[in-house]
Amino acid sequence: MRVPFDRLQALASGLLESRGAPEQAARLQADLLLEAELRGLPSHGLQRLPLLLSRLDKGLADARTCGTATWQRRAFLSVDGERGLGPVVIMGAIRALQVRLNETGVALAAIRNTNHIGMLAYYAEVAARSGLIAIIMSTSEALVHPFGGTEAMLGTNPIAIGIPTAHDPFVLDLATSVVSMGKINNHAMRGIPIPEGWAVDAHGRRTADPHAVRSGAIAPFGGAKGYGIGLAIELLVSTLAGSDLAPEVRGTLDDGHFANKGDLIVLIDPAAGAGSAHALSAYLDRLRHSRPADPACPVAVPGDGARARRAASLSTGIELPQQLFENLVALEAA
Amino acid sequence: MRVPFDRLQALASGLLESRGAPEQAARLQADLLLEAELRGLPSHGLQRLPLLLSRLDKGLADARTCGTATWQRRAFLSVDGERGLGPVVIMGAIRALQVRLNETGVALAAIRNTNHIGMLAYYAEVAARSGLIAIIMSTSEALVHPFGGTEAMLGTNPIAIGIPTAHDPFVLDLATSVVSMGKINNHAMRGIPIPEGWAVDAHGRRTADPHAVRSGAIAPFGGAKGYGIGLAIELLVSTLAGSDLAPEVRGTLDDGHFANKGDLIVLIDPAAGAGSAHALSAYLDRLRHSRPADPACPVAVPGDGARARRAASLSTGIELPQQLFENLVALEAA
Repeated sequence: MRVPFDRLQALASGLLESRGAPEQAARLQADLLLEAELRGLPSHGLQRLPLLLSRLDKGLADARTCGTATWQRRAFLSVDGERGLGPVVIMGAIRALQVRLNETGVALAAIRNTNHIGMLAYYAEVAARSGLIAIIMSTSEALVHPFGGTEAMLGTNPIAIGIPTAHDPFVLDLATSVVSMGKINNHAMRGIPIPEGWAVDAHGRRTADPHAVRSGAIAPFGGAKGYGIGLAIELLVSTLAGSDLAPEVRGTLDDGHFANKGDLIVLIDPAAGAGSAHALSAYLDRLRHSRPADPACPVAVPGDGARARRAASLSTGIELPQQLFENLVALEAA
Repeated sequence: MRVPFDRLQALASGLLESRGAPEQAARLQADLLLEAELRGLPSHGLQRLPLLLSRLDKGLADARTCGTATWQRRAFLSVDGERGLGPVVIMGAIRALQVRLNETGVALAAIRNTNHIGMLAYYAEVAARSGLIAIIMSTSEALVHPFGGTEAMLGTNPIAIGIPTAHDPFVLDLATSVVSMGKINNHAMRGIPIPEGWAVDAHGRRTADPHAVRSGAIAPFGGAKGYGIGLAIELLVSTLAGSDLAPEVRGTLDDGHFANKGDLIVLIDPAAGAGSAHALSAYLDRLRHSRPADPACPVAVPGDGARARRAASLSTGIELPQQLFENLVALEAA
């Protein structure tokens, strides 16, 4: 079913406010979930809300705190999220870094003890639209096996990069797994097999059965190189944030544990650099108009597809499973 | 043929000194090339030396300068390499950043107008062994086509990440192309076809002919995700360094143009973070001992293989094509 954006924003914000979230925090958390829906990433959308509400009810998440930030060095911010809502803590850290950037040109925030921060593209786009380069990384529960291995030892460890141009920003957002657990769950729900190379079962055997992956592991993207990047993110985040490594991480997919993964934000002021935003835009347009492999599919730049889907969904309403909408309405009435 | 490390160090340093390189600069440039040989990366080894000597002879490279560095902000260093030797300019920038790190915790250098900086792992390892996290990116001539495209529009845009642990550092170094042009040239030399998916010819058609790739393009690694990362590196480096974008880049593969690509170094002091190097080492050992897909091939951590090859080559001597060694000896005698 299709539901207008405003109806869902009010519904989600209201549910969060009923759990004690201040109005601004509730709107921000709802916005993050809705932006994922708008961009066609439902795995990071409203389906996460019931779990988050349960975490708030159980005291595993605290809707009132913005966390505590400490400047360890002039450009190095250490943030204890104090179990706060992911987007509330992250946006607070971004604002703190922004202020410091005039002085330092580059600054980072290493963050522990926050709840799930959701779709990283959200923050990368906000920063890039304010004229800043953003590199954002996050860790997760162990779901991915190493290249040449078969055990789930790494998080899906997403990275997002936002870069301002003279027009719309470049916004890259990817998990370092070959596919998300959300997509595998979707295959399970629809009863269709998963393609060769996506995952292994609990015994480390390649499997086409999406149900078998839950006790198995997903492959890293891009072979040894993608594994290397996912592992670098695992190490960077954990050593800077003091967060746990994947095999010990809990709390982004359950409502039984505190969230002990970590997040890392690096902001850079391109005004300190020697390049030009116009040169980037001209180059990206050359890319878009370069010869495609399939004449029906022009070359895309990261962020283009999400932007088009967002515009379409804003006008037509957000496509939502009826069951999920009814669940949320029932929670609202409770 | 196998040649002892010391003989090659003296040979390469001597050739560079004969072109006016100060002793220390000559040793550093020679060391960079030899470390690539030791680690089994001959594409970045001594085969690059004759071209570099020719560039020095023609005034396209200047062996005497260390470049000029300017702090744009407290943690943002802008470097004009003034056509200097790549490793000389890069190591100078790393030393400048290191000094600033006590104050800022993170600092970056954006570098233009240097000659080829070679194997990035070299710098990542040096920084990590001195206790610092290093992220290094570089751009190049257009050799890679976008995902879904067929024209060479991106550089091979390598990235290296060095992270200290309680034992040997984690050192990742990868090009964002599915394979290096060096490996394709190697197939051409040996007269064997290249695998499906590596590259397209001048008309954008998939090709197994390594000779056809020179006027075609190499695929990005890891599909759309790898393309996104390669493109992010292209934009980040060029907008911060003010260097040219791939279609305009010249001067790392020829001796007819100044080198106008860019390089980016980000250093972070993990001592400002909340994590522990021992936790990283323990986790990496768990990874190495996790269940492999093939019992004969244990799971590897980036840097392990290069380290083993280096130790072996140091004791047995460096394996070099006889023709290359004879060319260098002839240059020495000239």
